[in-house]
Amino acid sequence: MHAITIISGGMDSATLAYHVNSFKNCTQHFLSFNYGQKHGKELECAKKIAATLKGQHDVIDLTSITHLLKGSALTDSVSMPEGYYAEETMRLTVVPNRNAIMLSIAWATGIAEKAAYVFYGAHAGDHFIYEDCRPEFVEKLSSAFSKGTHGPFPYDIRAPFLHHDKAQILREGIKLKVPYEDTWTCYQGGEVSCGKCGSCQERLWAFSENGIEDPLPYATRKLIKKGEQVG
Amino acid sequence: MHAITIISGGMDSATLAYHVNSFKNCTQHFLSFNYGQKHGKELECAKKIAATLKGQHDVIDLTSITHLLKGSALTDSVSMPEGYYAEETMRLTVVPNRNAIMLSIAWATGIAEKAAYVFYGAHAGDHFIYEDCRPEFVEKLSSAFSKGTHGPFPYDIRAPFLHHDKAQILREGIKLKVPYEDTWTCYQGGEVSCGKCGSCQERLWAFSENGIEDPLPYATRKLIKKGEQVG
Repeated sequence: MHAITIISGGMDSATLAYHVNSFKNCTQHFLSFNYGQKHGKELECAKKIAATLKGQHDVIDLTSITHLLKGSALTDSVSMPEGYYAEETMRLTVVPNRNAIMLSIAWATGIAEKAAYVFYGAHAGDHFIYEDCRPEFVEKLSSAFSKGTHGPFPYDIRAPFLHHDKAQILREGIKLKVPYEDTWTCYQGGEVSCGKCGSCQERLWAFSENGIEDPLPYATRKLIKKGEQVG
Repeated sequence: MHAITIISGGMDSATLAYHVNSFKNCTQHFLSFNYGQKHGKELECAKKIAATLKGQHDVIDLTSITHLLKGSALTDSVSMPEGYYAEETMRLTVVPNRNAIMLSIAWATGIAEKAAYVFYGAHAGDHFIYEDCRPEFVEKLSSAFSKGTHGPFPYDIRAPFLHHDKAQILREGIKLKVPYEDTWTCYQGGEVSCGKCGSCQERLWAFSENGIEDPLPYATRKLIKKGEQVG
């Protein structure tokens, strides 16, 4: 089986890459996207993961569209929201139609390479904020792409962690020996993880739930509860 | 009303731009895509159309994905098929998932700019060969994008020529005074239109049906019938 797997360099998609790698006779072509995210550091992590798993890897330059993706704290001059990851304020981190863009390019690659599946790392923790990580979106987009494609490949878009939260993903990743020191989650572009953005908070929560320490250095590791003000 | 309109520089999307321009109080942001097509000349035409209609225009550089779009005569080292435009051989001109990629970026722009609609120039003449120009594809993709989007904008993807053939589009364009001398249709990258590729053939047929001469220079203007060998 051949698969196209989207990896950001974050912990969910790194776990996904190891998960797919555990299938029998499976080759993966990894795609990552530079859409002008402030945390471009994640792309270096994506390269390490792809190299470790010996898969073909393309980092696709989409910086020609960065100026169109207005209003997101990830790409625009909007302050990064801090606090509990599923607060309404975190909606500022939505990049317009980002997953559809990445998936459409991954699907194109899948057609050209007759890949069985396109994999991406959407998970249940994302559902509150990110509409483009919800089950109905994945299902509808996969169905639309199939309708627009002549041959049988790819069969569909797969998001095996769609009903897992980040702690459950980490539990699987620990079994698969994912090198989490080679992943990057913080939305800020700093030297160490800020510990305050929603993305850091969810990651810290996942490690805490699994009773282990995150190998990455942080500016702070204090967990913030829902509704709590950031100190 | 604000709209995002995809224009290739070809005659269908040029007519589309003029069609949308005829709506009351409508602004358009035009998007064109450089995906490494051999007929890059069309992008110069897109610039002229956008400038004439005084709309914002971005030519988006997607050449970072050209090497992934394997197997198409438009982007790869595959010979351009010649002859009647709806022959099975014309399938070589399909670029994998191209319209979904362009529409996903146009939709993202539409979210950021609170555009009411995303327009593209798919038409009935394309249905035989191009799955990503058929009504069910447009409907499903629009529905998937809406599901992945938080706010109300864009409302949907509109393809007003979805049930028009190229001759009918030209008929409307003539009324709208579209400058067809500023459009480019030939899939070959030559100085003048080849007249033999499926795209030239369909254009020549549309002008012939309307009883007028295409203002573009051609190497040959001989119309080929379905099933006929190219001489």
